[in-house]
Amino acid sequence: MSCSFGEKFKITVFGQSHSEAIGVVIDGIPAGIKLDTDKIGAFMSRRAPGKNAYSTKRKETDIPEIVSGVVNGITCGAPICATIRNSDQHSKDYSKLKILPRPSHSDFAAYVKHNGFNDIRGGGNFSGRMTAPMCFAGAIAMQILEEKGIRIAAHIEKIAGIRDERFDPVNVDAEQLKAVSSKEFPLINDCVKDEILAKIEEARLDCDSVGGVIECAVTGLPAGIGEPMFEGIENVISQAVFAVPAIKGIEFGNGFDCADLRGIENNDDFIIKDSKIATATNNHGGILGGITSSMPLIFRVAVKPTPSIAKPQLTVNLETMLPEELVIEGRHDPCIVPRAVPCIEAVTAIALINLI
Amino acid sequence: MSCSFGEKFKITVFGQSHSEAIGVVIDGIPAGIKLDTDKIGAFMSRRAPGKNAYSTKRKETDIPEIVSGVVNGITCGAPICATIRNSDQHSKDYSKLKILPRPSHSDFAAYVKHNGFNDIRGGGNFSGRMTAPMCFAGAIAMQILEEKGIRIAAHIEKIAGIRDERFDPVNVDAEQLKAVSSKEFPLINDCVKDEILAKIEEARLDCDSVGGVIECAVTGLPAGIGEPMFEGIENVISQAVFAVPAIKGIEFGNGFDCADLRGIENNDDFIIKDSKIATATNNHGGILGGITSSMPLIFRVAVKPTPSIAKPQLTVNLETMLPEELVIEGRHDPCIVPRAVPCIEAVTAIALINLI
Amino acid sequence: MSCSFGEKFKITVFGQSHSEAIGVVIDGIPAGIKLDTDKIGAFMSRRAPGKNAYSTKRKETDIPEIVSGVVNGITCGAPICATIRNSDQHSKDYSKLKILPRPSHSDFAAYVKHNGFNDIRGGGNFSGRMTAPMCFAGAIAMQILEEKGIRIAAHIEKIAGIRDERFDPVNVDAEQLKAVSSKEFPLINDCVKDEILAKIEEARLDCDSVGGVIECAVTGLPAGIGEPMFEGIENVISQAVFAVPAIKGIEFGNGFDCADLRGIENNDDFIIKDSKIATATNNHGGILGGITSSMPLIFRVAVKPTPSIAKPQLTVNLETMLPEELVIEGRHDPCIVPRAVPCIEAVTAIALINLI
Amino acid sequence: MSCSFGEKFKITVFGQSHSEAIGVVIDGIPAGIKLDTDKIGAFMSRRAPGKNAYSTKRKETDIPEIVSGVVNGITCGAPICATIRNSDQHSKDYSKLKILPRPSHSDFAAYVKHNGFNDIRGGGNFSGRMTAPMCFAGAIAMQILEEKGIRIAAHIEKIAGIRDERFDPVNVDAEQLKAVSSKEFPLINDCVKDEILAKIEEARLDCDSVGGVIECAVTGLPAGIGEPMFEGIENVISQAVFAVPAIKGIEFGNGFDCADLRGIENNDDFIIKDSKIATATNNHGGILGGITSSMPLIFRVAVKPTPSIAKPQLTVNLETMLPEELVIEGRHDPCIVPRAVPCIEAVTAIALINLI
Repeated sequence: MSCSFGEKFKITVFGQSHSEAIGVVIDGIPAGIKLDTDKIGAFMSRRAPGKNAYSTKRKETDIPEIVSGVVNGITCGAPICATIRNSDQHSKDYSKLKILPRPSHSDFAAYVKHNGFNDIRGGGNFSGRMTAPMCFAGAIAMQILEEKGIRIAAHIEKIAGIRDERFDPVNVDAEQLKAVSSKEFPLINDCVKDEILAKIEEARLDCDSVGGVIECAVTGLPAGIGEPMFEGIENVISQAVFAVPAIKGIEFGNGFDCADLRGIENNDDFIIKDSKIATATNNHGGILGGITSSMPLIFRVAVKPTPSIAKPQLTVNLETMLPEELVIEGRHDPCIVPRAVPCIEAVTAIALINLI
Repeated sequence: MSCSFGEKFKITVFGQSHSEAIGVVIDGIPAGIKLDTDKIGAFMSRRAPGKNAYSTKRKETDIPEIVSGVVNGITCGAPICATIRNSDQHSKDYSKLKILPRPSHSDFAAYVKHNGFNDIRGGGNFSGRMTAPMCFAGAIAMQILEEKGIRIAAHIEKIAGIRDERFDPVNVDAEQLKAVSSKEFPLINDCVKDEILAKIEEARLDCDSVGGVIECAVTGLPAGIGEPMFEGIENVISQAVFAVPAIKGIEFGNGFDCADLRGIENNDDFIIKDSKIATATNNHGGILGGITSSMPLIFRVAVKPTPSIAKPQLTVNLETMLPEELVIEGRHDPCIVPRAVPCIEAVTAIALINLI
Repeated sequence: MSCSFGEKFKITVFGQSHSEAIGVVIDGIPAGIKLDTDKIGAFMSRRAPGKNAYSTKRKETDIPEIVSGVVNGITCGAPICATIRNSDQHSKDYSKLKILPRPSHSDFAAYVKHNGFNDIRGGGNFSGRMTAPMCFAGAIAMQILEEKGIRIAAHIEKIAGIRDERFDPVNVDAEQLKAVSSKEFPLINDCVKDEILAKIEEARLDCDSVGGVIECAVTGLPAGIGEPMFEGIENVISQAVFAVPAIKGIEFGNGFDCADLRGIENNDDFIIKDSKIATATNNHGGILGGITSSMPLIFRVAVKPTPSIAKPQLTVNLETMLPEELVIEGRHDPCIVPRAVPCIEAVTAIALINLI
Repeated sequence: MSCSFGEKFKITVFGQSHSEAIGVVIDGIPAGIKLDTDKIGAFMSRRAPGKNAYSTKRKETDIPEIVSGVVNGITCGAPICATIRNSDQHSKDYSKLKILPRPSHSDFAAYVKHNGFNDIRGGGNFSGRMTAPMCFAGAIAMQILEEKGIRIAAHIEKIAGIRDERFDPVNVDAEQLKAVSSKEFPLINDCVKDEILAKIEEARLDCDSVGGVIECAVTGLPAGIGEPMFEGIENVISQAVFAVPAIKGIEFGNGFDCADLRGIENNDDFIIKDSKIATATNNHGGILGGITSSMPLIFRVAVKPTPSIAKPQLTVNLETMLPEELVIEGRHDPCIVPRAVPCIEAVTAIALINLI
């Protein structure tokens, strides 16, 4: 069903932006793992809002309560359930949206799907807030993967047209990934940071928003992970990634650029490196036939500009069926790309742990 | 598991390029449907090789035998199984590939995954030939969808850098889709055909290959199809699409272009059109919050250049662990984009019918 | 995974007997249903302990908090999560059981499975307490089924060898089911109640326990429900029923008795009744080929005597690997059959709603 | 879906009694296994009809063709598909059954479910013939399990009221299982064979049929196999077992007998045996909390008498809706219990391999 993902490490996400609580059940975690709650907290705070100018002023304490599956800090083999109370809610902000769907938001589709019974407050179960429990589950998956030598990190490749460098697809390593993910504003080349922040601030002052691209890399994956056809690395990661709101595209390795290359340019020759088989280049992004090749896994996702903007927009009143101008109130991120970075890491971790 | 997809219309694909047969089991087809075998045959022949200069000279009769699920041409409610015998095989061509993995092909990953027991002949179960049973299942899904007024068609958006037009995301309709999919070389603007064919021929003479982009559109989808989070339209279509070999990226609506837009530019205002709610633009590609909006569904996929090329390449001998030059023999498409077009339509149909 | 069941109405159960909370996530409930919380509460109280002599003295308030999926009492289409706080726990009672597995309890198997990290307190996630969230989900399923004219009820067929009547498999109807399930001690023939209660009390005074058989009937099921082979009514109900602790057998229709009959005795002739097709007898228990026949669905389950008894028993100390006498402390039901009755109804409702 | 079972070793069964072929796809078999085709053939012939007086005179060659997944007799990691051609069919025998449903057969339920489009010939996909591909898959599962020291065998516990001995639940071992399953008529105590055969022959001459009980045991299962709640040993075996036609009940360990016991009688004390933890008795049938205890796994299933009997019976004509006498022609087993024995072993093997 739509709120569950995975078989071996199965997550089931519940809640709406303004329901009593949101949370996740994780089934399939082995017994005997000491959860590193500091690390989980640190990871979740990377996603949390309210910390700076480019994110919404909402303050979510977002401290998950683990209500099952853990005894004295150690997993006991039973499913883990963590809940996060929804507290800092301004439900009244959303009252008129029930009949005035926000452009490029889920409101209208959800209204039709649920015959008008959808929970409109804060976007209901379509809210970006639902990525908080995903990050909780992702942090646990990441801890288990790191113990196997697998490291995941993403960075802002582009916001509002301003580009960071890309990972070197051949030489990126765990050290670089660790370094990037420890940054408060995750860029490879920090020199572009000010320019990006200026673009975001400009959009904010304009009552507008900006989009971007996130690049994610995974190192330490041995060759042979993934299943052919419908359970390949691309299939499973993309199914997971599109659960993060606002993602509109994904490409692996050199992605859409491969379309313009000749075979001889795009193919990655096999070589011996450190006595092991590797490839000289890495256009394939670490995936051949849906299965890992042992080269770094590389992919990028497109993030659309936040649809909730304060500028007046046109919509249709669902009761009168007449056009109406809409000015969205409430607090919204002028750019969600930075906060989406840990979410992409989280769903990648969840996707990969199900294949290993 | 990796060879199955879907719950309501569940397909299970089996076979290898050179095994006795390949085929598919389809579970979940309602009883009482008269299969249009002419249409199924016509659809499958769009994928079949051996018809022209840009596709391999292999001739596959590719006539599926329906061995179950159908009585007197009408579905009986039991699972349909169709098998396709493998006949025109040159297995000897592939003998040396067991230890000389082809660059950017699945050989090495499959070798590691299956401890050297993988079926290397013709790419085994990683072969593009496995799309034949997918097309059989897709043709049936498409017949059922068409009876509900839903039409799917894809076209070559680009090959070797030469671009076709894109579908008009707001106004594309069933008529246009029908017209495009009836073409032997599916382009919107036939004027670029000769240029594209020349580029393919040039690559072929060069012992090389070229890649491209395929654009797919779906009309007639009512609003409200798809499930939030992990079973949204993007999640399910992308999971299906990456089962087609050589696909390296997918984008919905305006896709990666959205990253450079402001919210006000990217958002699609709601309007009334023909007394129904529509959007003035369609950057969202017909999908909001993972759910259909009733606007045309639009997405594009990147197809890499065929990795099997006759040019000499470098690889590593898996027995000696020494570098070796590889010249791939056998018959290969200098460009698989045209034959991939119906495959993309097929997996889209299979993905959508599972959500309806 | 092991804590989830169903596809259309998917439940995911979490918690342990003494964790912070237990609960359930239900995915797939249509939007717009007004939950009858009084009915849900009444149903759950039939399972709750602490009410009389034959059940444990533990008092569980067992009031579920619905934390998502419901807005103003009406389902909104998002998954429903309900949590029940664990309060009246005496964890110290269980401390020594970690190394002294109780005979015929899950302790030893869980210890091995989870390498000693299993939550032993109150039986952990193997506890009968986990049926509380199942009953919550079952009550909702039952409400939806009742609106379709489908009614489920179970009764005590036998405890400690004292038999109630069986349902008349041909003539049992909704009225009778309603009447039985409204009883505090669900028997068809109340005359045996005192004798049964005496047997339970006798066992209790003996520091022992007794088992029994529960019979369940479902009326109002139209013909044609269920899928052949692995998703038939028997397959799905039995998969669900064995999730209730202490169940050791299940039989449909005349069950094991059919083994001694001739075909002509066991076969149920088709007849016309009230202008519809029915059968003259109902040895088949309403299921033919895994699919409903429109006759009442009938099945029975065997419930073993509570394994937790206060009588001294022999076990092995898992640390010393030496035999040891065990006297189980804590509060345990001398007979769980009465409290298992609503649990069987609940899992039956959940199983059936997934097939409709 | 209904024709698939399992996740790790997933089988998908297709075909109808009189379709072109029946068969099975198995996904999840590791690469590198040399299939013992002699053993597979021998196992399947135990199920095959036409060998003696108590089975139908139909002769099915039942030789499966492996069309994928195996290269030179060794699994290659791709899904295995095996097909069995349907040859010795007398479809005309069944023509009138379309409108005259056979009592206690699937005909009527299938007719309603599939709106009259069901394949009535030979029972369509409800036919006992569908157990042939299950046995093929089961034989492979059994080969893999035997290599892990796990052995499965079933025997006729009872036919027409004549009882064989039961397995000794504590001391049954692999040797005894091997001995029983090598018998042409699988009984523990061969002294009852003639009496049973006489009862079957008597029923046959009477144009009638008889039912029975099959007992199955599994040795060599380590403790800790199975998952709590919905994926326990009982849940998964019972889901699989009810896919075999004519099964009406299942009980594990002492089963329904436990209902009449006191806790102290039913509980199995833990003891040390051969330096390992065991139980002194085995009423629990090797399963505690859904998980194996390392004691022999024991269960029994009830098999109803073959519903297809030549005696005149009453049914309703589905066209005229009038009562009609039906005399079933064709060739039918007067007792299917002996042929069901390997089917029960097969589905048990498939169920267990998915949990290991």
